Amino acid sequence: MSPERVVLATGNRHKVDEVARILVATGARVELVGADDVGGMPGVAETGATFAENALLKARAVAELNGLPALADDSGLSVDALNGMPGVLSARWSGLPGADAENTKLVLAQLVDTPDERRGAAFVCAAVLVQPDGTEAVQRREVRGRLLREPRGSGGFGYDPIFVPEGEERTTAELDPAAKDALSHRGRAFRALAVELGWTDET
Amino acid sequence: MSPERVVLATGNRHKVDEVARILVATGARVELVGADDVGGMPGVAETGATFAENALLKARAVAELNGLPALADDSGLSVDALNGMPGVLSARWSGLPGADAENTKLVLAQLVDTPDERRGAAFVCAAVLVQPDGTEAVQRREVRGRLLREPRGSGGFGYDPIFVPEGEERTTAELDPAAKDALSHRGRAFRALAVELGWTDET
Repeated sequence: MSPERVVLATGNRHKVDEVARILVATGARVELVGADDVGGMPGVAETGATFAENALLKARAVAELNGLPALADDSGLSVDALNGMPGVLSARWSGLPGADAENTKLVLAQLVDTPDERRGAAFVCAAVLVQPDGTEAVQRREVRGRLLREPRGSGGFGYDPIFVPEGEERTTAELDPAAKDALSHRGRAFRALAVELGWTDET
Repeated sequence: MSPERVVLATGNRHKVDEVARILVATGARVELVGADDVGGMPGVAETGATFAENALLKARAVAELNGLPALADDSGLSVDALNGMPGVLSARWSGLPGADAENTKLVLAQLVDTPDERRGAAFVCAAVLVQPDGTEAVQRREVRGRLLREPRGSGGFGYDPIFVPEGEERTTAELDPAAKDALSHRGRAFRALAVELGWTDET
């Protein structure tokens, strides 16, 4: 049996690579393609108040467009001193969508007077699958950590260079991909989803 | 008896004018001066997690410097869709302290996909007085409203041009000063403080 073909509802190549890597490591028998590989990523206004709502908006649009099962994630940084924001607005916090460096710089500027003991944060991910018949699965996971005052490391994307996970001294931009996936919000959420969908027995 | 001399712990001339106007309207017998009129505003890192903490930090520093009773306020915009932020970071939300236009523009950009029914917000103010002997009084008040998509009006300062108070159709930047003071967070907090301090019987 050839692997099931699944579309990841994103135009972000980094995310496709990362999710493919996570799923391969679980032994899931799926062939992951990006939305840009099968007709493009439709414009979806991410108006949801939660990560899960936004992920479902994206996956539904892509499943409908392609008639293929569509995976999506919505994820972001939840900063304690910002009452959980940027949250669902993580990718457009500076008002410039997808501007990782500007978004990171803005969070650091907003926290410039926030002392070390109040710099806690979490990366949060909702991973979802929407089937062409409308069936939906949702898993939400997070990883706690703390925010630095200057970016460090060149791996990853988004806020990775300023986030140090609990139990680590390196930022998620300094971890090698396998180490990052093992503890990351996205790794945890997609592994949980793969188990729920019967793609793997690993947890 | 000549009016008691009281320093408002701010370098912001708009705030001095507004608080003086509010207190005059209550009939309070105090002579309000700005920190810049009596030795300058000391540098105070506003590291508090609440408006009251930050207001107390500023008033304590000025009372200590001058040996005069020091009033202070800390106030800001609490946006529902931003989990209550900018909050204590209202004056430096864009990372540029005191940059009203940039801060307002950033909030509007962050809310660009937020539908009208989720654009609720409140202006919140903590007004405090610190006596030279260390005695402290604190009053916190707010006004609920909603946020527009474009600034309107030229009065006021800060986020006034995008905030429409409940029961109003005009922004707080479109209200005349007396109408603004009657319902504003700052008007409510300073009137409550004036009553607590016995400066006036009005409420």
